[in-house]
Amino acid sequence: MDTLDILRQLAIIIIAAKFFGLLARKCKAPQVAGEIIAGLLIGPSLFNLVESSDFLAGMAEIGVIILMFTAGLETNISDLKKTGLKATVIAFVGVFVPLVCGTLLYMAFYGFSAIGTDGFYRAIFIGTILTATSVSITVSTLREMGKLQGELGQTIMSAAIIDDVIGIIVLTVVIGFKKPDSDVGSVLLHTAAFFVLAFVLGIIIYKLFKWYDNQHPHTRRIPILGIALAFALSYVADKYFGVADITGAYVAGVILCSLRDSDYITQKMDTNSYIIFGPVFFCSIGLQTNIRTLDMTILWFSLAFVAVGLLSKVVGCGLTARLLGYRGHNALKVGVGMMTRGEVALIVAQRGLKVDMLEPAYFTAVILLIIISSILTPLLLKALYAKDPPEEQKA
Amino acid sequence: MDTLDILRQLAIIIIAAKFFGLLARKCKAPQVAGEIIAGLLIGPSLFNLVESSDFLAGMAEIGVIILMFTAGLETNISDLKKTGLKATVIAFVGVFVPLVCGTLLYMAFYGFSAIGTDGFYRAIFIGTILTATSVSITVSTLREMGKLQGELGQTIMSAAIIDDVIGIIVLTVVIGFKKPDSDVGSVLLHTAAFFVLAFVLGIIIYKLFKWYDNQHPHTRRIPILGIALAFALSYVADKYFGVADITGAYVAGVILCSLRDSDYITQKMDTNSYIIFGPVFFCSIGLQTNIRTLDMTILWFSLAFVAVGLLSKVVGCGLTARLLGYRGHNALKVGVGMMTRGEVALIVAQRGLKVDMLEPAYFTAVILLIIISSILTPLLLKALYAKDPPEEQKA
Repeated sequence: MDTLDILRQLAIIIIAAKFFGLLARKCKAPQVAGEIIAGLLIGPSLFNLVESSDFLAGMAEIGVIILMFTAGLETNISDLKKTGLKATVIAFVGVFVPLVCGTLLYMAFYGFSAIGTDGFYRAIFIGTILTATSVSITVSTLREMGKLQGELGQTIMSAAIIDDVIGIIVLTVVIGFKKPDSDVGSVLLHTAAFFVLAFVLGIIIYKLFKWYDNQHPHTRRIPILGIALAFALSYVADKYFGVADITGAYVAGVILCSLRDSDYITQKMDTNSYIIFGPVFFCSIGLQTNIRTLDMTILWFSLAFVAVGLLSKVVGCGLTARLLGYRGHNALKVGVGMMTRGEVALIVAQRGLKVDMLEPAYFTAVILLIIISSILTPLLLKALYAKDPPEEQKA
Repeated sequence: MDTLDILRQLAIIIIAAKFFGLLARKCKAPQVAGEIIAGLLIGPSLFNLVESSDFLAGMAEIGVIILMFTAGLETNISDLKKTGLKATVIAFVGVFVPLVCGTLLYMAFYGFSAIGTDGFYRAIFIGTILTATSVSITVSTLREMGKLQGELGQTIMSAAIIDDVIGIIVLTVVIGFKKPDSDVGSVLLHTAAFFVLAFVLGIIIYKLFKWYDNQHPHTRRIPILGIALAFALSYVADKYFGVADITGAYVAGVILCSLRDSDYITQKMDTNSYIIFGPVFFCSIGLQTNIRTLDMTILWFSLAFVAVGLLSKVVGCGLTARLLGYRGHNALKVGVGMMTRGEVALIVAQRGLKVDMLEPAYFTAVILLIIISSILTPLLLKALYAKDPPEEQKA
């Protein structure tokens, strides 16, 4: 692509993403949904103003690394420790149930495949997309209602965060299976090796950053070195351990999340993200989807995918919470709070596209799930909290 | 280039640029010089860790657009009105002197050729490469020193901008000697048309932004719409008027420079620039050079070319500034500030290659001039400003 044309495409992407992002917000839907729709409209589906290219793919890659790095940075390790046990159990079940249900759904539509075949991996990948809850929408709804600080709110939040981590591990393992020279043992070994290395190296890197941050607080060097760490760790994860590059970026964020200046880094990353890289990333998802190629099978599959995606989380997490001692309606809140999907699901889907475990047509299903869950969760949570007797509102 | 490799290259570029940038600052040189040297070291000249690619070229392009947009945003229109006439005269002489000197240099090395012969065009093309000052390095040096706002800084910047426009016109005219389908009149007409359009459209766009900024002050939308305008205007300038895209970006900045939130936009652009795009842009200048491929004739020619390139600008612009009433050391600052060459010189050289008016070997000379001028200008400017008596620091 001609460098001059890059400028034209960026201008269109940025304006369209912002316009539809704001429009989505006006309609009480998340901005992200608007940005994806913007990509759909300017792409091959409708106006064909911008086409996906290697350059935009590279920009989107940087965008996703920044997003995952920021998600890691926002982790609160001490909160995670407090609500830890219950949240971990809920998160595990909340990953397992959608994973299995998603896999079965694909097989129900396209036939059962033997373990180890391409069809099997495609099925399991559909399950993998369903694993990760999006914290952001649930958190902002709970915060808006003043319910974030209670035990229930903290449990939901911690479970959603842990569930992200497990989801990413699942993704890593599933993608590892696809590589021709790999067997299950080697994949698990490589993944474990990466996390051990990340843990050991993470402590050293954290100490170095902490020392440097104390010497030069609030300087540009801190976010600059931070993003360099995210790029480096993403590369090392993927190249040498077969772990998804976004996992590396997320781990880089977690390593730096207890830094005094972690908010400062987040803020600078955010500025980089929302002006260019974010719009490019979310639009490029729309760009890669051509709704003209949709057929009825995909459409039915998408609707089933949304239903399975929502119900598997509500049932899986809700029942687990009930078994852990929450009363019925509180357990339901946990289930509903965990059912949102967001950018991580998209990121996982895109990774699948890259390693040829997912076809572009299925993006429609993922986008539909994100939009519907993001609109439904706040409405249901509000309704459930409204039914609480006054003395239980604190729970 | 593989998207994974992008992450490796970015990590190296960001770390190297930051390290050598800080080292340069420790040595009282501006960071920009360090970042170019970083590019030289990690490129094919030495460690060969990163090679220039279409992707990096695109990123560098975005970097230079953001840089020029920011420069435009920081324009003080009343200062520009004050410096306009002087800047125009300086720019004209600053194009004419290097054009003639460069032509004579080539003839001195390879023999005098009659007007109309191929040798004559080759000679005049060498002069053409020398015409356009690169604003970006001078601007970032002046900004780093806090000297961009003064009358002198504004004069240098305005002259450099006008000089770019004249340089592009000269290029078009010179190439027109060989290609019968473009004539001087049409080039001048297109350029004039662009500035008229930019002026009329600029007033409307400014009013729209001003109204929107009052409705939604300090929102993300303002910088987002701003950068979109910069990309759009850059594209339109180059595509439809044959005016350099960086001129379009600068004009976009000037349109918005009187906005209440112009500082807010600048600040957000700055964050985008220093974390990724800036390092990539400056490193990519170093990356395009392979000092290992030089032979003796080209080496001597290159050294002479660099000397002529630097001196013709310093003498041409400096003497003109002196005649226009600047004191000796301030006139020298104007000369030195105008001697940087950058991406425009490279673009001119590339076009020469395309129309067979330049051989590839001469690229080394151009890149050498860019590197040496980029390193020398900041050093000399700093030294010149350091010599100012305190009461003249504002000049």
